[in-house]
Amino acid sequence: METFGWHSVHLFLSLTKKYVMESLKQRKTIRRYQQKDIPADLLNDLLETACRASTVGNMQTYSVVVTRDAANKAKLAPAHFNQPMVQSAPVVLTFCIDLRRFSKWCRDRNAEPGYNNFEWFVTGAIDALLMAQTFCIAAEEKGLGICYLGTTTYNPQQIIDVLKLSELVFPIATVTVGWPAEDPKQVDRLPLQAIVHEEVYHDYTSQDIDRLYAYKESLPENKHFVEENHKETLAQVFTDIRYTKKDGETMSKILYQAMKKQGF
Amino acid sequence: METFGWHSVHLFLSLTKKYVMESLKQRKTIRRYQQKDIPADLLNDLLETACRASTVGNMQTYSVVVTRDAANKAKLAPAHFNQPMVQSAPVVLTFCIDLRRFSKWCRDRNAEPGYNNFEWFVTGAIDALLMAQTFCIAAEEKGLGICYLGTTTYNPQQIIDVLKLSELVFPIATVTVGWPAEDPKQVDRLPLQAIVHEEVYHDYTSQDIDRLYAYKESLPENKHFVEENHKETLAQVFTDIRYTKKDGETMSKILYQAMKKQGF
Repeated sequence: METFGWHSVHLFLSLTKKYVMESLKQRKTIRRYQQKDIPADLLNDLLETACRASTVGNMQTYSVVVTRDAANKAKLAPAHFNQPMVQSAPVVLTFCIDLRRFSKWCRDRNAEPGYNNFEWFVTGAIDALLMAQTFCIAAEEKGLGICYLGTTTYNPQQIIDVLKLSELVFPIATVTVGWPAEDPKQVDRLPLQAIVHEEVYHDYTSQDIDRLYAYKESLPENKHFVEENHKETLAQVFTDIRYTKKDGETMSKILYQAMKKQGF
Repeated sequence: METFGWHSVHLFLSLTKKYVMESLKQRKTIRRYQQKDIPADLLNDLLETACRASTVGNMQTYSVVVTRDAANKAKLAPAHFNQPMVQSAPVVLTFCIDLRRFSKWCRDRNAEPGYNNFEWFVTGAIDALLMAQTFCIAAEEKGLGICYLGTTTYNPQQIIDVLKLSELVFPIATVTVGWPAEDPKQVDRLPLQAIVHEEVYHDYTSQDIDRLYAYKESLPENKHFVEENHKETLAQVFTDIRYTKKDGETMSKILYQAMKKQGF
């Protein structure tokens, strides 16, 4: 009986570990949600878990703004180009770089903070993003679905205004969260050799690129994407339509100006 | 028997979910490692899992450099202020923003990329950090210990040189990985109310700061930290010793110059 007990524990632990890896491997972004709330206790539990992510000097240079109110979601929506998830998800989380709380603590403790510069903007972004991703993984383990909105860095000033973000606070990632109402196909990823470099960076030859992008280019959905946009190649869909040089340069200016305006 | 089966499955799933949340909640940074390798298969499996993290437009604007060679670790160490983990961990991972691979693919496909700007530097950082954190959580679930090195953004140019990073590739996070040889106490975190803002950002009063930092300031290890540094307050240890304004400004210039030099 005792032997059986040990075996069970061992089996349980190895199965749970396998389960975690499998759920991470099978994960998908969820854009459609059930009309069903997320209990405050569950959300807080997930956020508290997320705060265990690594943070530079244990300074926790981040804040999270929770949007549940429909009127506030409607105000946020235009900043995210009216992607429907903003208004249909029960909860929208805006993860922010926050050097304000720490700086305020310093000033109140007879210490002069120096965190209003580019280095700390980047450090705060790292802190906030590790926390955001830990939240997302914990949420998915609880059966929730999430979607990151890349639009956060396109229109930071609008988000700053709607969420009334103070100086030294800056939105870096928005995540919509809810109970899944869809089960989409998992999208492709590049083969691992495209991503990993042993010891030093190995620059890509054109033959490497052909090989590493062959699977992506062969997918019917991507071929269809090229056709419906009347382009020659999938890459042109990105450069000419989705993410143009002109937009990137405009957004760079907006991002830089908003960063300066927030005091960095 | 069938009922028993269903119960078992249900129990198993609820236990595994609890287990994941618990392991995330109990996690700690590990700085001392056993002298024991990480098998290539395991590392690749973890990296592949990490690539399932969300990525803007499925562009995967990141690369990872894997350092296992002792001579290369020794070359990396000074960039990380010779923190011992760099040379004692079996594996050092440098997670990089990478707009080069995607841009090369575009050029090879008759498309003109425009990703050499600040917006895409930030987007690449987001991609790389979500991937890095997913790696870390998966690694911890497998029993490995990890440590993020904040020094990556202090000395980016040295890292770029050692790892021979090409144009449009930039180091954003370094993680040392290995089998734990220590079981440290979990460090404190601020209470959740310090981090979370309902609907809009609520600025902190001095009373809020007192309340939110009371526990941190009460900890014997933090009181000891103040004493051994001959300071009046814990905050002064940060502003005067650990993270000074002068260092932040110098590092901001270095970071900005390295970013420009890499073509952003």
